[in-house]
Amino acid sequence: MKLYDYSFSNAPVRARIVLYLKNVPFDRIEVDLLHCKQTDGHSLLELNPQGMVPTLVDGNLMLNQSVAIAEYLDEVFPTPSLMPRDAKGRARVRSLALMIACDGQPLVNLRVRRFLTGELRFSHQAMLSWVRHWLASSLREYEAMLARNPAGGNFSHGDTPTLADVFLIPQVQLARRFGVDFAPYPSILKVHDRCMLLPAFQRATSEYFLEEPGFGLDEAG
Amino acid sequence: MKLYDYSFSNAPVRARIVLYLKNVPFDRIEVDLLHCKQTDGHSLLELNPQGMVPTLVDGNLMLNQSVAIAEYLDEVFPTPSLMPRDAKGRARVRSLALMIACDGQPLVNLRVRRFLTGELRFSHQAMLSWVRHWLASSLREYEAMLARNPAGGNFSHGDTPTLADVFLIPQVQLARRFGVDFAPYPSILKVHDRCMLLPAFQRATSEYFLEEPGFGLDEAG
Repeated sequence: MKLYDYSFSNAPVRARIVLYLKNVPFDRIEVDLLHCKQTDGHSLLELNPQGMVPTLVDGNLMLNQSVAIAEYLDEVFPTPSLMPRDAKGRARVRSLALMIACDGQPLVNLRVRRFLTGELRFSHQAMLSWVRHWLASSLREYEAMLARNPAGGNFSHGDTPTLADVFLIPQVQLARRFGVDFAPYPSILKVHDRCMLLPAFQRATSEYFLEEPGFGLDEAG
Repeated sequence: MKLYDYSFSNAPVRARIVLYLKNVPFDRIEVDLLHCKQTDGHSLLELNPQGMVPTLVDGNLMLNQSVAIAEYLDEVFPTPSLMPRDAKGRARVRSLALMIACDGQPLVNLRVRRFLTGELRFSHQAMLSWVRHWLASSLREYEAMLARNPAGGNFSHGDTPTLADVFLIPQVQLARRFGVDFAPYPSILKVHDRCMLLPAFQRATSEYFLEEPGFGLDEAG
């Protein structure tokens, strides 16, 4: 099992949380995503046409998309399970994870930020406003889902971590990096603090470096 | 089973394809998404904090996010199955569907287009360029995945429709609406034409109206 990873990227944190929660050994291959090169000198694009991380390789399977990676790992390494036993519970957990994966992160990821400041000549400040707008919107909606349709327990769904938490926690850390105010999101903070008691979440997030070259907050002005 | 829907929106087409493929009866409730009202006068936001379509209601379950809706329907109504039997096959199908759901559609959906032309004061032409850029990028990547890692068969994965096709076909129709050139995507076109022989794809897409008020191509200039 190989994980193509980039320490300044947010989405691979999700894959690492799952791998650590399930104690799956893997080789981590660092990719320089700014130049789309991996440490062996080849381009990630040769392997994955999206050229994005995380990319998981398991034998003859090359797998991109972090939701697909998380679901695959949960099927192949079922313990501990990250999905509820009932269909409605699984649906709720997938929905929460997808609110981050579809409507939260893709609008603010590296390639969109580069497109804004590159092709569209957004100022750094305008790019930051864009990022904060969509981060706050995804957190507001997640908070409302937790508050209006609670499933009980200290995590997003029940008393053990699920795929929803795997996607929420990196998003919280991304939003903190961009200076989003968390006062309106008490349910999210409670879940975040509970997750961060677990070694898998601690380790995966500690490997996420916040000062990406060219996009650090030092340039926020 | 109730489906909150909007005929000018692309994402609900996915839910309708699944419901029609599986012959599941449902009540369709049309939402005026531009004003976030449904036909009974209530706001969709009262039900779904994201205020987005499709929203599926099944008894006490309120479900947003089209990937979660499709997976739920596939679990609860297993015939015909939209997922391969093997874990690696399921992973590939999910990955293809998520390439559209995460990296294709969220960058060009109604709320992003409104944000571009509203808050950010993009011209209509600049908004169209943005949309075409991200649509072409998602199609290019999907085409490369089909070409480089073929699974055989006339659909995206094998000889029967899967979740991947459910997400691809509406994206093709969205891209056509925005005038994207399909010459570079022969594998996608082959899959599209095969899917469109099936009544479920025909019916679901025929209910997708392309001339959304305020965003029609008549204003493309």
